[in-house]
Amino acid sequence: MQTKGRLIVISGPSGAGKSTIVFKAIEGRDDMCFSTSVTSRSPRPGEVDGREYFFIDRERFQQMIADDELLEHAEYVGNYYGTPRKFVEDKLAAGVSVFLDIEVQGARQVSEKMPEAIKIFVITPSLEELRRRLVKRGTDSPEAIEGRLRRAREEYAEADFYDYIIVNDKVEVAAAELQAILTAENCKYSSRKHWLENA
Amino acid sequence: MQTKGRLIVISGPSGAGKSTIVFKAIEGRDDMCFSTSVTSRSPRPGEVDGREYFFIDRERFQQMIADDELLEHAEYVGNYYGTPRKFVEDKLAAGVSVFLDIEVQGARQVSEKMPEAIKIFVITPSLEELRRRLVKRGTDSPEAIEGRLRRAREEYAEADFYDYIIVNDKVEVAAAELQAILTAENCKYSSRKHWLENA
Repeated sequence: MQTKGRLIVISGPSGAGKSTIVFKAIEGRDDMCFSTSVTSRSPRPGEVDGREYFFIDRERFQQMIADDELLEHAEYVGNYYGTPRKFVEDKLAAGVSVFLDIEVQGARQVSEKMPEAIKIFVITPSLEELRRRLVKRGTDSPEAIEGRLRRAREEYAEADFYDYIIVNDKVEVAAAELQAILTAENCKYSSRKHWLENA
Repeated sequence: MQTKGRLIVISGPSGAGKSTIVFKAIEGRDDMCFSTSVTSRSPRPGEVDGREYFFIDRERFQQMIADDELLEHAEYVGNYYGTPRKFVEDKLAAGVSVFLDIEVQGARQVSEKMPEAIKIFVITPSLEELRRRLVKRGTDSPEAIEGRLRRAREEYAEADFYDYIIVNDKVEVAAAELQAILTAENCKYSSRKHWLENA
């Protein structure tokens, strides 16, 4: 039986370690992948088109919105971010689970379109710790960091529709929790009731 | 902060390996324990009073029902089984999670009284495999085995209120799934929203 993949939405402030945790979870697996988003922002040093994001200009992005080619999209700090619908639907149909790294606004859109998506919110143990990580990362100006912290506070207040919260204190523990969530979701009654029906 | 323990209801046919899985999960941990049920049935060879069950007579059992000392109780193959309320409540208050190994009828009673309980149904990959395990265990007559299989089929049809199903094919995998379920439950939004509120 070909099992359909699961859609897993991962949100949380930039700097909380979302990508690191997900990459640990999908490492070496061909039944899970990271969705590649499209964005209108410029690549950061080291970012590769088609790996971190598909980098496109604002005009092309607006055309994708108009043509309903995006599962969700949002504007964030002046740039567009979105999820190509076809990429996700093809993977799920092929039995591959797809991780979406999107912010709260987009997660809510996906949740409404695909209520069966697993929604996980990743945070640092405190906003003070988030500030330390952003400073250490060194990719944002002090003003941009304050903006991210402000945005984090706003997102925390809107996060009540997530299924799970992972507090990324130690990355190994956080990655293990992500794995446990995926395992537990596979054990859910709704995912396994066919075992009772075909016993 | 003293965290309250979780109540975890484990059901499934006799012979599916419920106890084995739970004992693996709680091994070496002082924040989890198995509830010891009371029963009016006679001890099997090797069973110790206060370990597998508290063995009491039918009259004492009926007194406990009358005095509301049981969280749930049921009659099964002519014998009473029940869960002492005080034992469970004391453990939970002390931050210890409690596993209840009870059948579907009792699980439904507990679920109504304590909707926050995690309810897990443990099965074998097939009823044919269950039969093989019961024959191998050698504690039941052929007629008793047929009775257990009939009862299993009935329980499968009534199990729709369980949160999770564990298919115990390999005990290591099943025990890991149980651990994952407990971890994931601790990651649930409702269990962790204080991290957002106190960030």
